[in-house]
Amino acid sequence: MKKCCLIIALLIILFASCSRPAKPAVVFQSDFGLKDGAVSAMKGVASGVSPELKLYDLTHEIPAYNIWEAAYRLEQTAAYWPKGTVFVSVVDPGVGTVRKSVVMLSKSGHYFVTPDNGTLTLVAKSMGIAAVREIDEAVNRRSQSNQSYTFHGRDVYAFTGARLAAGVISFEQVGKQLPDTVISIPFQQAAKNGNQLSGMIPVLDVQYGNIWTNIPDSLLHSLGVKAGDSLQVQLLHKDSLVFNQPIPFVHTFGDVPEGNVMAYINSLMQFSVAINMGNFASHYQIGSGPHWKVKVEKASVK
Amino acid sequence: MKKCCLIIALLIILFASCSRPAKPAVVFQSDFGLKDGAVSAMKGVASGVSPELKLYDLTHEIPAYNIWEAAYRLEQTAAYWPKGTVFVSVVDPGVGTVRKSVVMLSKSGHYFVTPDNGTLTLVAKSMGIAAVREIDEAVNRRSQSNQSYTFHGRDVYAFTGARLAAGVISFEQVGKQLPDTVISIPFQQAAKNGNQLSGMIPVLDVQYGNIWTNIPDSLLHSLGVKAGDSLQVQLLHKDSLVFNQPIPFVHTFGDVPEGNVMAYINSLMQFSVAINMGNFASHYQIGSGPHWKVKVEKASVK
Amino acid sequence: MKKCCLIIALLIILFASCSRPAKPAVVFQSDFGLKDGAVSAMKGVASGVSPELKLYDLTHEIPAYNIWEAAYRLEQTAAYWPKGTVFVSVVDPGVGTVRKSVVMLSKSGHYFVTPDNGTLTLVAKSMGIAAVREIDEAVNRRSQSNQSYTFHGRDVYAFTGARLAAGVISFEQVGKQLPDTVISIPFQQAAKNGNQLSGMIPVLDVQYGNIWTNIPDSLLHSLGVKAGDSLQVQLLHKDSLVFNQPIPFVHTFGDVPEGNVMAYINSLMQFSVAINMGNFASHYQIGSGPHWKVKVEKASVK
Repeated sequence: MKKCCLIIALLIILFASCSRPAKPAVVFQSDFGLKDGAVSAMKGVASGVSPELKLYDLTHEIPAYNIWEAAYRLEQTAAYWPKGTVFVSVVDPGVGTVRKSVVMLSKSGHYFVTPDNGTLTLVAKSMGIAAVREIDEAVNRRSQSNQSYTFHGRDVYAFTGARLAAGVISFEQVGKQLPDTVISIPFQQAAKNGNQLSGMIPVLDVQYGNIWTNIPDSLLHSLGVKAGDSLQVQLLHKDSLVFNQPIPFVHTFGDVPEGNVMAYINSLMQFSVAINMGNFASHYQIGSGPHWKVKVEKASVK
Repeated sequence: MKKCCLIIALLIILFASCSRPAKPAVVFQSDFGLKDGAVSAMKGVASGVSPELKLYDLTHEIPAYNIWEAAYRLEQTAAYWPKGTVFVSVVDPGVGTVRKSVVMLSKSGHYFVTPDNGTLTLVAKSMGIAAVREIDEAVNRRSQSNQSYTFHGRDVYAFTGARLAAGVISFEQVGKQLPDTVISIPFQQAAKNGNQLSGMIPVLDVQYGNIWTNIPDSLLHSLGVKAGDSLQVQLLHKDSLVFNQPIPFVHTFGDVPEGNVMAYINSLMQFSVAINMGNFASHYQIGSGPHWKVKVEKASVK
Repeated sequence: MKKCCLIIALLIILFASCSRPAKPAVVFQSDFGLKDGAVSAMKGVASGVSPELKLYDLTHEIPAYNIWEAAYRLEQTAAYWPKGTVFVSVVDPGVGTVRKSVVMLSKSGHYFVTPDNGTLTLVAKSMGIAAVREIDEAVNRRSQSNQSYTFHGRDVYAFTGARLAAGVISFEQVGKQLPDTVISIPFQQAAKNGNQLSGMIPVLDVQYGNIWTNIPDSLLHSLGVKAGDSLQVQLLHKDSLVFNQPIPFVHTFGDVPEGNVMAYINSLMQFSVAINMGNFASHYQIGSGPHWKVKVEKASVK
């Protein structure tokens, strides 16, 4: 009987060690590019924390120091990853200055490890802040790294993100809790004024040259817009008109002939403008960021 | 005795759950590029299906809307992955139009999840079609995604590929079986006419500027060509001669001096032309695709 | 009692099969780029060896045939990966010629699978050579690959690296042991002459245009240099002066105004020069490699 108990105890231990669930993924983002070893060094550090971690990339092609785009890419992607996923984002023009290093837990259950420099602007807004903790670099820093001032991405952010994902530290062990707020970059939010919607161009769909705006489909629907309608679309750079034309609003690219301008709802459920099989941004020289704005209303004459 | 039986039963269950083999890999290909979050969103969806899946990339640098190149990259790569691997290829100029979404099982045991728009042209031919099923989007679609018309890659293809690889659905549960055929792009196949071989340039070896043709080494050997022979090589664009020179056929790059033109058999066992340590394509302005053809014969005078 | 013994025996087998530690990572580097299927084919072969392997990338954007940069990227990255990691580096201008295919085990416990063509120059020096073995291609080569002369990366290096990481072969089974030496590219090592340090520019920090040198921080400290000091920095191309200015030595980018020149210690603990928020290399037209040298001393007048 004692042996049986022993065996059952062994079984329980074994089962516990065997059936452990997969650890949450770690997803890296940076402006490091893929031409040198910086991204690989971050993954090496993470792999050293636990070889079982699954390490993925968001993108490492954020334009150098472009915090706005880092914020946008997180917003574009995070919700599609499962709860518990740890994002490590390193776009850090102020490395070594006073910006705080933080981990934000969103209400959706995602973790974001990053300098608090505006990178969290959009996910904080869309996902909500459950808690923010400041990384205590006295303990959450790769050993033998204290002389390297410039590579926090590897020694602090990747290391802390990996330890959090691997369960080596708890969220509480990241460091002291901060108020539920993060540094935010100001930008024109989507709004409705009478029959006109206004918003901005947070980012281009770079691969195809499509124009993505921050106007949600719900706002468009509130104007009573439906597929086939003609929309008057204005694109402005610092308040000067760059584009001002009526555009058909369609379900999908195949609904207009090749080479034609069209408006549609993109994969983020936001108002977008494109040329079917062409590059709208380069053709009309449209850019993105806080200085690029958009206005939309139903075209007066059909 | 009963306890022993119970323990043995537990052991069997435990062993079954512990010793499960690794799931087949999911390999993604697209024309999305790596600068935004689209590839990461696909992987997030797949990771949400099962965090244990191994997610890899073929390439995401297919030129926008270039179905031919998507077909070629699959053909170049698929056979090197183990049986059971699930390829998810999203190059989809007709997204939202009537092209079918399918999963093709090849006779080699590989799965291909893709719009049926020509992407399967080459693997269907080389690997053979075991079965084709149309993705039933009523069930094989990410929940809460039904309003997004434009991002099938994430909501249908990545989701279905991941569920297939994870064993959440069987191949039969993809949807109804279709006839054993796929949409194919016409192209000039390799052929022998007397002492001359003809074929086309399916793709350039972009990193080095080498010219890869679709003429297999077996056809070349049928001319009695051996290392050291001189070959008369013609490259044509829409039937006008762009290059016409005798070239030495060698085993490997080191067999000719730096800067010299050479012909060789590439890693796909196909006839190729290069400049040792140089860029043949840019030097002679050679392109690729259905409009680029090649003719080869033994040089008449040595 | 017999049953109990049987159960315990089963438990031991089960535990052994269950609790096996994660296999070491395989980290790939090449000059293949990411636009075609070459990298994916290597990973497919590795995945076929063992689907449980974790496969990562260092970079595949090494400039074509640039062995020096391959050596530098390995040196930049390897130490951050855990002991046992298997690096597969394929930058191989002499493919098919007489250079040996080797696996080097460093004293730090990392494996490097590569053509012995200078790729190991820097890791051999910094990590030390524990042993070098020549890959016996009679056994360590993908089956059915013997006709392909040009793609050793996939058929020999990826295959051998994966089998080594997966434990299919031991280090001894790679092939016969060679002397503890590798082919090394000559370069000017960091040195101190009186009050002047000299060295070279092994590589640019390509994403930001920063200048990285091979002068270690220890040498700089031996001059008594501290943050805030002004340093006279000369950059030379083949012994002609390209840049010659006093530069402030600072802890971090934030210590100088945007657009200002600065000197600092980079993430590899080496002397570096940059423009805060700018691109030093393109502004002053500085390159890298054995022909680019650097000289540093304290500026005479503060």
